[in-house]
Amino acid sequence: MRARTLGVVYEGAVQDLIDELGRLPGVGPKSAQRIAFHLLSADPADVRRLADALIEVKERVRFCDTCGNVAQAEQCRICLDPRRTPTAICVVEEAKDVVAIERTREFRGRYHVLGGAINPIAGVGPDDLRIAQLLRRLADGVVTEVILAMDPNVEGEATATYLARLLLPMGLTVSRLASGLPVGGDLEYADEVTLGRAFEGRRLLSA
Amino acid sequence: MRARTLGVVYEGAVQDLIDELGRLPGVGPKSAQRIAFHLLSADPADVRRLADALIEVKERVRFCDTCGNVAQAEQCRICLDPRRTPTAICVVEEAKDVVAIERTREFRGRYHVLGGAINPIAGVGPDDLRIAQLLRRLADGVVTEVILAMDPNVEGEATATYLARLLLPMGLTVSRLASGLPVGGDLEYADEVTLGRAFEGRRLLSA
Repeated sequence: MRARTLGVVYEGAVQDLIDELGRLPGVGPKSAQRIAFHLLSADPADVRRLADALIEVKERVRFCDTCGNVAQAEQCRICLDPRRTPTAICVVEEAKDVVAIERTREFRGRYHVLGGAINPIAGVGPDDLRIAQLLRRLADGVVTEVILAMDPNVEGEATATYLARLLLPMGLTVSRLASGLPVGGDLEYADEVTLGRAFEGRRLLSA
Repeated sequence: MRARTLGVVYEGAVQDLIDELGRLPGVGPKSAQRIAFHLLSADPADVRRLADALIEVKERVRFCDTCGNVAQAEQCRICLDPRRTPTAICVVEEAKDVVAIERTREFRGRYHVLGGAINPIAGVGPDDLRIAQLLRRLADGVVTEVILAMDPNVEGEATATYLARLLLPMGLTVSRLASGLPVGGDLEYADEVTLGRAFEGRRLLSA
C-alpha cells in the first residue's frame, strides 16, 4: 500500500504490476491499470504463459552476429538461409524494420541492422551504430548492391546521407527507398513534404 | 517460426511474446511488436521484474469477500478500515471504479463491486452480478444510504434503475452520480446527451 503520483492507493501487488506495465512503451497509466485489472480476472494459465514468454524471450533470443537482426542462434534465419541473394544488403535502423520489409516480399537479399540512426541531439553518432560491422561485411567484394532503408525522417536522412558518402566511393550500387504518397492515402491529407517528394519523384508514363 | 495473419515470420520466442502481449486489452499487433522489441533490448532484470509482478498478482491478489474489491486478504483494506463510515455504500461496476472514486476523496463510506452491469446483448443479467451479496450487506439495517455509481451509459443506467427499484422500497436513501459537462471541458464539444443532462440537472444560483 503506497501513495502514488495520481494519489492512487492500490494493494501492493496490483500497484507493482501497474508500475511495471506502465514502463512499457506506449502504455500509459490508464492502459497499465486496464491491463492489470484484465489480468486480475484472467485465467491464471494465460498470465503464466505471458510471464513465461517474457522470460523465454530474454533467455533464448539474441542478436545475429552478422546482421544484428533478432536470432535464436549465433546467426539469424535470414543470414543462414542459402536461398537469399548474397550480393545485396538492405540496411535498416531496427530489427522490426526487417520484418516490415520481409512482409513486402520485394527483397531477396540479406539485411544489416544499424541499431538506430544518427541523432546528434540524442547523442547518437556513427560510432554508436553497427556501421563498422557493415563495412566488414562489404570487404570481400561479394556484395554489389546496398539499399538504404532508413526511416523517412531527419535522423534517417542524415544516416542515409552519411552511409551513401561512405559506400559510393567503394563502387557499390547504393539506393534509397522512394518517398511519396502512401498507397491508399488521400492526396488532400498528405503533408507538404511528402507531397513535395511525390512530385520530385514522379514517374513518366508511356503509352 | 510460424506464418502469422500479417504474413510475419518472427523467430519462435519473439513471436510467442508478441502473441501473448497482443491478447492484452488495448494492445494491438503493432503495439505488441513495439513492446516485444523494447523488451528484447531491455535490461533482463527489468523484464524479470515484470514477469514476477505478473505471477505475484495472480498468487497474492484476490477479491474481497465482502465488497468484491481487489484485496490481499479475505477483506480489502477499505472494508477493514474502522474509520470508514459503516452507514453508506457506494455501488460500482468494477474494482477500478473504487480507485477512481477514492481519488476524489469525496466519499468516506464503503463500496460494493457488482462485477459488471446488466447487459442483455452480452447475456449479463442481474443474477450474474453481485446483487444478492449487496442485499445481504443491507439486511442488518446498518447501511442507510446507497450511492449508485454505475457508468453513465445504457448498461449503467439499466443497472442503476434495476437497483433503485430494489432498494427504494427498503427505505434507504438512494442516489445516482450527477451527469453533466466534464470539468475543464468545452460546451461546444459536448455531445447532445451530456449537454441535455447538464441542462436537466442545472443548479439555481443565489446572490
